[in-house]
Amino acid sequence: MTQILDPVFEITDEPESLEELLKSVKLLLKYSTKVGHRRKLNNPSTSFDVISLAGEMMTSTTNTNMFTYEIAPVYTLIEGLVLDQMRTMVGWPPSQGDGIFAPGASMANMYAICVARHKFIPSFKNLGMVEQRKDLIVFTTSQCNPSTPRSAAIIGVGLKNVIFVDCNERGQMSVTDLERKIVSSLAAGSLPFFVSATSGSAMLGSFDSLTEIADVCDKYNLWLHVDASHGGGVMFSANHIHLVRGIRRAHSVTWNCHMMMNCTLQCSAILIREKGLLEACNSTCATYLFQQDKHYDVAYDTGDKAIQCGRHNDVYKLWLLWRSKGHTGMSDHVVRLFKMAAVFQEKLKSTPGVCMVLPEMEFVTICFWYVPEKMLKMTLKIPLNMLKFDWLEGNNNNNNYKNINNNDDNDNNNNDWLPTFYKVVINNSATTSRDIDYVINQMKRLADEEVNTLMMMK
Amino acid sequence: MTQILDPVFEITDEPESLEELLKSVKLLLKYSTKVGHRRKLNNPSTSFDVISLAGEMMTSTTNTNMFTYEIAPVYTLIEGLVLDQMRTMVGWPPSQGDGIFAPGASMANMYAICVARHKFIPSFKNLGMVEQRKDLIVFTTSQCNPSTPRSAAIIGVGLKNVIFVDCNERGQMSVTDLERKIVSSLAAGSLPFFVSATSGSAMLGSFDSLTEIADVCDKYNLWLHVDASHGGGVMFSANHIHLVRGIRRAHSVTWNCHMMMNCTLQCSAILIREKGLLEACNSTCATYLFQQDKHYDVAYDTGDKAIQCGRHNDVYKLWLLWRSKGHTGMSDHVVRLFKMAAVFQEKLKSTPGVCMVLPEMEFVTICFWYVPEKMLKMTLKIPLNMLKFDWLEGNNNNNNYKNINNNDDNDNNNNDWLPTFYKVVINNSATTSRDIDYVINQMKRLADEEVNTLMMMK
Repeated sequence: MTQILDPVFEITDEPESLEELLKSVKLLLKYSTKVGHRRKLNNPSTSFDVISLAGEMMTSTTNTNMFTYEIAPVYTLIEGLVLDQMRTMVGWPPSQGDGIFAPGASMANMYAICVARHKFIPSFKNLGMVEQRKDLIVFTTSQCNPSTPRSAAIIGVGLKNVIFVDCNERGQMSVTDLERKIVSSLAAGSLPFFVSATSGSAMLGSFDSLTEIADVCDKYNLWLHVDASHGGGVMFSANHIHLVRGIRRAHSVTWNCHMMMNCTLQCSAILIREKGLLEACNSTCATYLFQQDKHYDVAYDTGDKAIQCGRHNDVYKLWLLWRSKGHTGMSDHVVRLFKMAAVFQEKLKSTPGVCMVLPEMEFVTICFWYVPEKMLKMTLKIPLNMLKFDWLEGNNNNNNYKNINNNDDNDNNNNDWLPTFYKVVINNSATTSRDIDYVINQMKRLADEEVNTLMMMK
Repeated sequence: MTQILDPVFEITDEPESLEELLKSVKLLLKYSTKVGHRRKLNNPSTSFDVISLAGEMMTSTTNTNMFTYEIAPVYTLIEGLVLDQMRTMVGWPPSQGDGIFAPGASMANMYAICVARHKFIPSFKNLGMVEQRKDLIVFTTSQCNPSTPRSAAIIGVGLKNVIFVDCNERGQMSVTDLERKIVSSLAAGSLPFFVSATSGSAMLGSFDSLTEIADVCDKYNLWLHVDASHGGGVMFSANHIHLVRGIRRAHSVTWNCHMMMNCTLQCSAILIREKGLLEACNSTCATYLFQQDKHYDVAYDTGDKAIQCGRHNDVYKLWLLWRSKGHTGMSDHVVRLFKMAAVFQEKLKSTPGVCMVLPEMEFVTICFWYVPEKMLKMTLKIPLNMLKFDWLEGNNNNNNYKNINNNDDNDNNNNDWLPTFYKVVINNSATTSRDIDYVINQMKRLADEEVNTLMMMK
């Protein structure tokens, strides 16, 4: 790839002609992954609606920084309106709460942990954490996004203080184990403060039981954060909102609208139940940027509650898309994704050699193993890493495969290790039943070819 | 404003017609600040080149996440190429160093302070900061971006451990005072580790003397970070690169290409001199996202060195712009900005009632006070906050004004307080001498009108 790009992509002293630029654009398109294609099914953040794209283009054409109402009068109002709407969907009274659009879910999750820490020990902001004599403890599961432990490392809590609670076979947090681990960390003299539950995990698409977790959090006075990056979209559908039952009891919620809601990257919101905390946590009173003596209500300024200073406008494309479809259209979209996921699952179940990781999917994520028929008949042992397919030796389950072209699960420092598998995420309204047939047939064809090559080499 | 927007901007149950959507787009454009206009001169991050806009549109059309080579093969290579180029300009050998595009300078500065902390005490990542018994100390000046103290608060260092070094009258860090404060914090048993110098400050456009600061950092073994968010662009111009003399001795550099280099928001790079630190600091070994057993060199994957997980592609628009202009074109652009800033300064100097904050500008930022002629003749005292103009009572300098429509300076917890002033930033290649005349005339006209109103009210 580098060889192809080198001469064309080089930056030189002299200006480049339009022809050369267009040549490079064509090459770019040729060699880029077509992530928006309706048959590209392995990533929840890549397909997008064309209205959202139009919104993004408007956004870049107006190129406004989001830090004050003064510089972005319409966009800051729209951001407020959309955040109100999202909080209402979570189940919080519209007048309450706060929120901001952050550059991706990792940053949204970081906002949450920072605000929670500030709520528990406001003096950290000024004094720093070195005065603290007790370990602050974060609870999550192996299903969490890597940003959860990473945020803990960044803010000075430390990776060792991120406790991984056991999951059941569906990847859901065990509430019994959560309570047990809270109690034992209290007994050890630590300070538990933050539970990060997941709604729509990246691996299995699992949803933690928020109501039960909220009961435990209330009992021990912990902050409940819900990372609904992928799963937040279910709140649009009356049929599927039960998956996040209890979300209104969260103290903060991360919701990626560049995932299920098909906005272009990036479009992540962090919603906070308690108003004022975001600003209390992040303000540095930069008066030269955010003067207080303006001719409008400075409550419209968002700069002093943001971790960022200059901030890209991520909300407009969402607002335009949402408005164009209405709540009904958004709901229809979500319902369709679930429907096509069910179609995919049924087709897989009738495909010989397929074994489902979970007996029934509950989200738009479908995980499965596939062993080509020919290979099922093979008795020879194939060395690990021989070709694309890795045979997991020493495992008596014939269905254990790894295909390097797919995102897949792996062990994650606790005991619910699963052999790597295929993962499919239905995220594109345009994906049809025929596309699903195509994808399954391609998988079979490619796998058979691999097996043939492998047998010829023997 | 809310009244105007309310009916048009509401999100309803039913889909909205294209006509309604277009109506809202027109309203949006009508009421938005025209930040890219060549007469809009008060913000360094808003004007942009149309080639960069085309790049942004390509970016959103391809909508690729930057975390792996697999999903963004061309874009990750381009990012590597551009970061190499930027490090070369800083003066580091191309084979050395690391870097990443971050969502804005605040995040870039946060990358820097996290990496520096990791370099000094790698055990923090796992253990957290509560084991630490010494305060970690950060040094900067009142000219810093608010993200510098904010980052210190976020990572657990604490605001009180951000020591503001004195500035001279040009806003440059006093190296004597820096050394004095390092010595006294060492004497107090603290652990100084990070100096954040500024190249092109947001207030005065000042440039710290990097060589002298680097000498002090070397002497006391501190990490030197240069926040060249605004000023980084001078590295394109042989005539102006002297402003960042010594930048190659920094350990990290923040450079906003959405400022002087006229990319659309956001386009911020963090450059790190030591290779490997970024990944050591931020990796969480999320194997389900970043498998190590791929059919390509996983060194091309950027995911595990990013704080973010999903990451917007910020580099393509810069690369396209840079390639279209070549180094020569970028240099010409920077030289032109300086030239027009000089024109602005000369015109101001011959405008009665104008008093410059600095006798000579050294960057594209021009700070000044303006007192309308009529007001100079008035002897009456005008109450504070009476109208747009605030008369700073008790100050015997007639040139002290505040105009709320401009970003302006203010006191910032140390002794170099200045009365608020006008600030102009030349950032748009399209700004002409006639535009400058227009802006100065408008300022005079509006101020005269204000004074007339004020006199009529008496």
